[in-house]
Amino acid sequence: MKQHVEEAARRARVAAGLLATTPRAVKDAALNAAADALVTATDRILEANAKDVADARAGGTPEHVIDRLALDAGRVAAFAQGVRDLAALADPVGEVVRGSTLANGLRMQQIRVPFGVIGMIYEGRPNVTADAAGICLKSGNAVLLRGSSSAAHSNAVIVDVFREAIAAAGVPADAVQGIDASDRSSATELMQARGLVDLVIPRGGAGLIQTVVEQSTVPVIETGVGNCHVYVDADADLDMALSIALNAKTQRTSVCNAAESLLVHKAVADEFVPRVTGALRDAGVVIHGDAAFEAADPDVLPATDEDYATEYLGLEISARVVESLDDAIAHIRQFSSHHTEAIVTRDLAAAQRFAASVDAAAVMVNASTRFTDGGEFGFGAEIGISTQKMHARGPMGLQEMTTTTYVVTGDGHIRA
Amino acid sequence: MKQHVEEAARRARVAAGLLATTPRAVKDAALNAAADALVTATDRILEANAKDVADARAGGTPEHVIDRLALDAGRVAAFAQGVRDLAALADPVGEVVRGSTLANGLRMQQIRVPFGVIGMIYEGRPNVTADAAGICLKSGNAVLLRGSSSAAHSNAVIVDVFREAIAAAGVPADAVQGIDASDRSSATELMQARGLVDLVIPRGGAGLIQTVVEQSTVPVIETGVGNCHVYVDADADLDMALSIALNAKTQRTSVCNAAESLLVHKAVADEFVPRVTGALRDAGVVIHGDAAFEAADPDVLPATDEDYATEYLGLEISARVVESLDDAIAHIRQFSSHHTEAIVTRDLAAAQRFAASVDAAAVMVNASTRFTDGGEFGFGAEIGISTQKMHARGPMGLQEMTTTTYVVTGDGHIRA
Repeated sequence: MKQHVEEAARRARVAAGLLATTPRAVKDAALNAAADALVTATDRILEANAKDVADARAGGTPEHVIDRLALDAGRVAAFAQGVRDLAALADPVGEVVRGSTLANGLRMQQIRVPFGVIGMIYEGRPNVTADAAGICLKSGNAVLLRGSSSAAHSNAVIVDVFREAIAAAGVPADAVQGIDASDRSSATELMQARGLVDLVIPRGGAGLIQTVVEQSTVPVIETGVGNCHVYVDADADLDMALSIALNAKTQRTSVCNAAESLLVHKAVADEFVPRVTGALRDAGVVIHGDAAFEAADPDVLPATDEDYATEYLGLEISARVVESLDDAIAHIRQFSSHHTEAIVTRDLAAAQRFAASVDAAAVMVNASTRFTDGGEFGFGAEIGISTQKMHARGPMGLQEMTTTTYVVTGDGHIRA
Repeated sequence: MKQHVEEAARRARVAAGLLATTPRAVKDAALNAAADALVTATDRILEANAKDVADARAGGTPEHVIDRLALDAGRVAAFAQGVRDLAALADPVGEVVRGSTLANGLRMQQIRVPFGVIGMIYEGRPNVTADAAGICLKSGNAVLLRGSSSAAHSNAVIVDVFREAIAAAGVPADAVQGIDASDRSSATELMQARGLVDLVIPRGGAGLIQTVVEQSTVPVIETGVGNCHVYVDADADLDMALSIALNAKTQRTSVCNAAESLLVHKAVADEFVPRVTGALRDAGVVIHGDAAFEAADPDVLPATDEDYATEYLGLEISARVVESLDDAIAHIRQFSSHHTEAIVTRDLAAAQRFAASVDAAAVMVNASTRFTDGGEFGFGAEIGISTQKMHARGPMGLQEMTTTTYVVTGDGHIRA
């Protein structure tokens, strides 16, 4: 098995060397070909997916997990379209990030180049297979796709179809490879393939990400765990606050940019706590609240520190009244996963202070946490949302899938 | 001891929270005060350094290592001036990297913010203590300085002087802290202080960096290992090639951007190999060469793959004749540490192909490898040269000591 990952990575390195200098037109033709092929293969993909779903049901997998695993023709068409859309985006490779002529006449350019080989380690959703293959190809990276064993049949067909299509379009098939997920150790081998894999991106729940961070010797970009807060300031427009809190919590609950915790300044608590409690209850949300929330509604459960630390990913929220803006910031710094924090306020100084202090990948001022998204930000594509406090943070689009190299040109320059 | 690192890191987090919003004027005043204080404390620093040097000599430390450890008034003045120079540089914090108004009216800005707490793990040279303290302070980061036990007395005084000066200027003293180096495990604790330390930067030899990469659970930026090549192409100006090869190898040998390996295209080997062999020998350089180099000079030693992989950091070089540009690229991809690779050529296509294929942080075309340096690149300061293929790669100046946050401002925007 060690053999399997190492050999795949070696073939990926060779493919990456070729892909790094493949012109945009060839990459775009390959993406379009892959999109066409995925649509054409819809029946084959759905047949494989039906096996995965049947196995999952037989194994007692809960329905909300099966919902993420299950494909239909619409979902296949959607991820095929996602691959096609990539062709229309600018190629990040070769972009000159900065450049200047130095005092000694050396001409310096910092240029975007692909990382090389990306290791993706992810959970159930088979659409990630097509998304990641497309984004990596467009950004000039080879990718090793290590999905969940629960989606093994679906992923295998998607990878096969993708490889065949890009190879026919002149891109090495080994730029996209699946890694056997039936063997647990293959994920560990992938994250320890130093010198063969340049970057590992885990996508999934907190447990998966924690494991990767602890065991990887390859650099990791963490993605996606979001214990996001909505803070309603003393100077908030309370209608706006209610609308944002509801949207952030309920518009889509299973995603990392959904709100998981609500903080309310004491100055507006008397009016706002009963209003928001009622509205959340009407939307079917279970509230874990402090004394003020418990007083507003007998259905509110008492909140513990564990609640404040929990990413529910469902119709649950923790809630608390805070003494001040500083108190809200301190709470967020204690419990945040550094993803997205929102403040609702009309007070400019409060907004600035909140933004400068909460230590998050994204801060929303008078907007829903749900806007932290590569698509919403206009990046056109997103491989995940980095909560790693490295140079790429927040939604990772095509630019974030590149590193840079300095190319310095002289006329025989030597150092004195 | 675990206590010691954890408590220091907790104090650093508090200081980092304050430093993140400290105005540039206050930070610059603190840097100038620290520079003054270091000069004033020269005698105290030299006295402590004399103890370190005496201990090192008594322990049989080789003289070239003692040379890196030993300070004199000139060296103290130089690193004090380095700290002073930082005050003149622009503050990277708050810089807007990109910004736009989205179609829905949301105003999005990507803004540079400090990482938070940096862990520096480094070897002998006490000047790194002052350099790193200054660069971290200017970029709004708190720093935990874990130097070598061999420089413990020197580092302790430099840290004391620095802390006292910045505290008097209104910056929390705990923004700069030394970590006890007498205990080996303190380095391990620093690199595993997840949630308390945001980024670890190891600076030193290959062994140190390997250890940090393998053991750290905090994100790491690797620095400094440079097995740099000079490739003399078929179409090179051979006078230029000779001058660059000599400069890259001999101008300063103990640094990561010195050349360690010379590749010569076979088309110019008959003329160039004897010339460069003679010139390197005259400069006192020991050559580990292939058959062509051995034939040119009886003093040339036979080169092994181990030689081609070695960063000599001294008056030694490996050398080989290659069949083609592709052969040179393949050799470099096999043995490179991805730091700096140089090509000497008049052929534009060869230069472009080399730059796109060698997978290095920096590529020099007709210039010495020695130019890969934050100072030479005009960054004004450098905490190290990243060979980590992440988003910050090559010389790391003040910009590379920041991450970013997206601040998105709306008027009650919710997602549909």
